[in-house]
Amino acid sequence: MHSNRIIITAGEPAGIGPDLVLSLAKCSYPHQLVVCADKEMLQQRAQHLGIDVDIIDYDANSEPTPQQQGTIVVEHVPLAQPAVIGQLNEANGHYVLKTLERAAQGCMNGEFAAIVTGPVHKGVINRAGVAFSGHTEFFAEQSDTPMVVMMLATEGLKVALVTTHIPLAYVSKAVTEERIEQIMQILHKDMVTKFALPNPRIYVCGLNPHAGEDGCLGQEEIQTISPTLDKLRKQGMDIVGPLPADTIFNHKYLEDADVILGMYHDQVLPVLKYKGFGSSVNITLGLPFIRTSVDHGTALDLAGTGNADTGSFQTALSHAIELVEKKQ
Amino acid sequence: MHSNRIIITAGEPAGIGPDLVLSLAKCSYPHQLVVCADKEMLQQRAQHLGIDVDIIDYDANSEPTPQQQGTIVVEHVPLAQPAVIGQLNEANGHYVLKTLERAAQGCMNGEFAAIVTGPVHKGVINRAGVAFSGHTEFFAEQSDTPMVVMMLATEGLKVALVTTHIPLAYVSKAVTEERIEQIMQILHKDMVTKFALPNPRIYVCGLNPHAGEDGCLGQEEIQTISPTLDKLRKQGMDIVGPLPADTIFNHKYLEDADVILGMYHDQVLPVLKYKGFGSSVNITLGLPFIRTSVDHGTALDLAGTGNADTGSFQTALSHAIELVEKKQ
Repeated sequence: MHSNRIIITAGEPAGIGPDLVLSLAKCSYPHQLVVCADKEMLQQRAQHLGIDVDIIDYDANSEPTPQQQGTIVVEHVPLAQPAVIGQLNEANGHYVLKTLERAAQGCMNGEFAAIVTGPVHKGVINRAGVAFSGHTEFFAEQSDTPMVVMMLATEGLKVALVTTHIPLAYVSKAVTEERIEQIMQILHKDMVTKFALPNPRIYVCGLNPHAGEDGCLGQEEIQTISPTLDKLRKQGMDIVGPLPADTIFNHKYLEDADVILGMYHDQVLPVLKYKGFGSSVNITLGLPFIRTSVDHGTALDLAGTGNADTGSFQTALSHAIELVEKKQ
Repeated sequence: MHSNRIIITAGEPAGIGPDLVLSLAKCSYPHQLVVCADKEMLQQRAQHLGIDVDIIDYDANSEPTPQQQGTIVVEHVPLAQPAVIGQLNEANGHYVLKTLERAAQGCMNGEFAAIVTGPVHKGVINRAGVAFSGHTEFFAEQSDTPMVVMMLATEGLKVALVTTHIPLAYVSKAVTEERIEQIMQILHKDMVTKFALPNPRIYVCGLNPHAGEDGCLGQEEIQTISPTLDKLRKQGMDIVGPLPADTIFNHKYLEDADVILGMYHDQVLPVLKYKGFGSSVNITLGLPFIRTSVDHGTALDLAGTGNADTGSFQTALSHAIELVEKKQ
């Protein structure tokens, strides 16, 4: 098998991101894993955690070589100020963004086959004077992608979202025919091209309780969602729904569905995270490259303790590798 | 132990309700279970299903006697027209309501210690000319109860709701300080009196994604939910939250919480039903009597086939019995 390069951003330097990327030294992998972070900071964190690791400078001009146990290959991006475990420092806000920029550029020019992102802290980046609403939006902007789709996956369940981080009161108005259609097109295309499913079966939630119960509990299913799904069915998509969100996760449907599309954040993510907590992964669809991420935050209180759970990080990496291999 | 009477309404006669109540003949119970339905219809359904059951007329003047295997005690309410399995008939819409009225009156006058309800079909009752939005609202009206709380429970998880069957677009406005306070008062009181938990710990969801993320994703947590919870904490309630709905169901919280309060239907019921599908129960809090219900519909296609899953019905009955015994 051809060895690919995957870039992994360590995220917020005061959080558990560095602990997570250091856990890579425990195993070997068939691909080259390049950590994008400050290498002195990683060395110090390794010492603090008692991890014996050989930190190797990344060389963009060499051929990709598989990840070797006991080593970490690092693309060095320097911190502005030394990182203190557990203490946010807005002086390092720009550093975090530089690691993301480096990763995105490397993906776009073909140097890397995928990005895996560690957790960042939105607040400290914003306090550093940069409007930053999240990795997903940042990568969309970097790659001139007009619309992306947020997907979360765990063993046996993938969910995608029509709307993501907006107040609940705005959801109904944001669920337009146009938006559903665009989201479905991206979702369908990426299920085919990135997940190698030639005819993905997409289950779709309604917006209202009981999917509106024939209009008694809301009109959006009748006026917006069902007509849009019918239109997409005519284009050849295999769609089931709209179905009530409180029954769509029954075991029969889960076996049959390749992905479940929810209309908003808290309609589908509680089940996904309940089912997969500690081993679920965030995947951004619609980007011109593969991007997966941990599904949790910076956990400042766990940084440097050795108690950070690497489950979600490992799952994010496994998914990135799987998608890279499917693409070959 | 003192033997109590529990009344069980068979619900829609064309659906699986009669199949469910006939399954009572398989076991003995320490309490008297009184089925409220048309007795000829039950006899016919038993023959159709090949169930050998002795149908005994209920005698309100006798002492309660434990439910005996092989028998069913029936409070006869006559159908308007013979029931045809799987075929709704609006001529029998009033019959269904009469069984509910009989049950509610018997609970209010002390004849019965609890009601367990089988599934009804809202549509056919409305087509019969009666505005009917559900059991819960019907029993609230029958008992002059100004506000009730919908709870669903399964092994290891109880959830209650601030808002229930309203369009999603109306949820934000419906989540007022006054409503949260009233719902919490009822929930707290019933956790103490009906569930015998002297100091229940109530976990509360936010309304917005990430519980509003410090106001970035909505103001309701800051303006409405948190101040109300603080007020209730001062009254002595043990409350955790508001927490993001996509992390509130993690295993640590589930072990610690006696109940989780969601702001709306699809925020918490998908997890509850995913966790407990086929064995979850609907419990109405705030009524002057105990009422539990199946969490599913009439399943017209399964009626009379012998394939109806009795899991939720058995769970509803077990919960009613548990609550009756706790009250003694």
